[in-house]
Amino acid sequence: MPSRVTLGPGDDMGAVRLDGRDLLVTVDQLADGVHFKIFHTPLHLIARKAIVRNLSDVAAMAGSPVGAVAAVSLPRDFGQDRANALFDSMRAVAMEYDCPLIGGDISMWDSPLLITVTVFAEPAGLGPIQRSGAVAGDSIYVTGELGGAWDEQGGGPHLQAEPRLTLARSLAESLGSDLHSMIDLSDGLAQDLGHICTQSDVDACLDVASIPCRHGVDVKRALTDGEDYELCFSASADAVVPHEMAGIPLTCVGQITKQAGAEPRVFLRNSDGSEQNIDRTGWEHHG
Amino acid sequence: MPSRVTLGPGDDMGAVRLDGRDLLVTVDQLADGVHFKIFHTPLHLIARKAIVRNLSDVAAMAGSPVGAVAAVSLPRDFGQDRANALFDSMRAVAMEYDCPLIGGDISMWDSPLLITVTVFAEPAGLGPIQRSGAVAGDSIYVTGELGGAWDEQGGGPHLQAEPRLTLARSLAESLGSDLHSMIDLSDGLAQDLGHICTQSDVDACLDVASIPCRHGVDVKRALTDGEDYELCFSASADAVVPHEMAGIPLTCVGQITKQAGAEPRVFLRNSDGSEQNIDRTGWEHHG
Repeated sequence: MPSRVTLGPGDDMGAVRLDGRDLLVTVDQLADGVHFKIFHTPLHLIARKAIVRNLSDVAAMAGSPVGAVAAVSLPRDFGQDRANALFDSMRAVAMEYDCPLIGGDISMWDSPLLITVTVFAEPAGLGPIQRSGAVAGDSIYVTGELGGAWDEQGGGPHLQAEPRLTLARSLAESLGSDLHSMIDLSDGLAQDLGHICTQSDVDACLDVASIPCRHGVDVKRALTDGEDYELCFSASADAVVPHEMAGIPLTCVGQITKQAGAEPRVFLRNSDGSEQNIDRTGWEHHG
Repeated sequence: MPSRVTLGPGDDMGAVRLDGRDLLVTVDQLADGVHFKIFHTPLHLIARKAIVRNLSDVAAMAGSPVGAVAAVSLPRDFGQDRANALFDSMRAVAMEYDCPLIGGDISMWDSPLLITVTVFAEPAGLGPIQRSGAVAGDSIYVTGELGGAWDEQGGGPHLQAEPRLTLARSLAESLGSDLHSMIDLSDGLAQDLGHICTQSDVDACLDVASIPCRHGVDVKRALTDGEDYELCFSASADAVVPHEMAGIPLTCVGQITKQAGAEPRVFLRNSDGSEQNIDRTGWEHHG
């Protein structure tokens, strides 16, 4: 890699250094049948999710959006009016977050709708908050409530997610160097916290009783449902983290631990002190 | 648009200004069945085209690549080995042009392979060369030879195109402010020169006898086949443009004209002095 690359693949965003400052870049795809169901979802909510998914990555680095480009593969029968409505909505959502769409590529094909959005951003103050900075003893926090973001028809809170941009920058500013690692929750806390563990070479222990489950959702689903677009971060145990910022709850859900010689892993501690391993689909009994 | 946007949608790349310099961004999709045929094309050539298509846009702005991100939607039966080979090839081609891949998104779905590449770049010396700068009296040039880039099996020169990065920067340097407009040829000279005309509000007259046709290709195909990934540019009539640069022919193919009150258009002048209009599929008799 050329020396201008300051952050290669593997984090929420990659980074290159230009004139002494980092430029952050992320790309995400949104596919009919995978990330939304077109027959059940209004176009403006599809457009919104396409933009917000990327902005959630920007939040995970405590960054500020600069701009975006979008590539769209349209089914041949999509129609010009609906295409225009989709693009208008994407432009409007992007502007809502001060992230202007400055270019794009439109293609027609015989397959389902696919939207690819690339967002570039700048770190806000502190350098980008990475996945690799967690250290043993850190407290682990999540924003908001988890689980149940996707219902059977493809609807639900994932379509209305609010990227935690302002909150992330406030956290980075108030915690300073005590904010060690951060990721956004797209695949579920168990799996995404696993990325922090792998990249930081640490284990993580979650307290079952502390997981902030969305109403009507059990802990298992809160850990594995995915599509939350909340943030998970680790901070020094002695950092002062408020219980909420701008009305969004911040919950301490566990600690970073290190068990020498083991593969990085995420495990659960039950209220009776017993422990369980977690995998991406649920968890298994451990001891 | 926020004031940081210096070039919105509609050119080869969009641009935002950061710390007083422009950051250029472009995105392009490459879809199985549209831009290549997977059963007839080795993976490393698909990977190459995915990167080069974008670098050709960078060349059209006389820019220098900074980095790239790639999003790939894989058919479910694609297989890990072939996925790895595809990504390895994309990384290698990108590095060949000093444009490191710094991130990506991989998704599986029940549809054909789709690759979306976003490249960001910096202007090299001069500000980005835009489509909108052509003025009446300019001479029009193309690089290389045109037409016949795509054969019936989806093979052909389009898979081996060389992005004209170095040539474009040399042109910008040697012509300076005499280089007025530039575009890369992806949809065929007739259509792409039409974009220059529309955005510059001028007409263009092409001399039939001067079009550099690839061996075995007639003028009509040279104007409309597409996928050439050569450059078309306009320069002051008194600019000194060499017949070749670094072994690549530069051919004067016509002039920018302006017919007041008319819609911007591209037309052909035959050797007998008669004129024909061109549309994207060929041309019609005119006078």
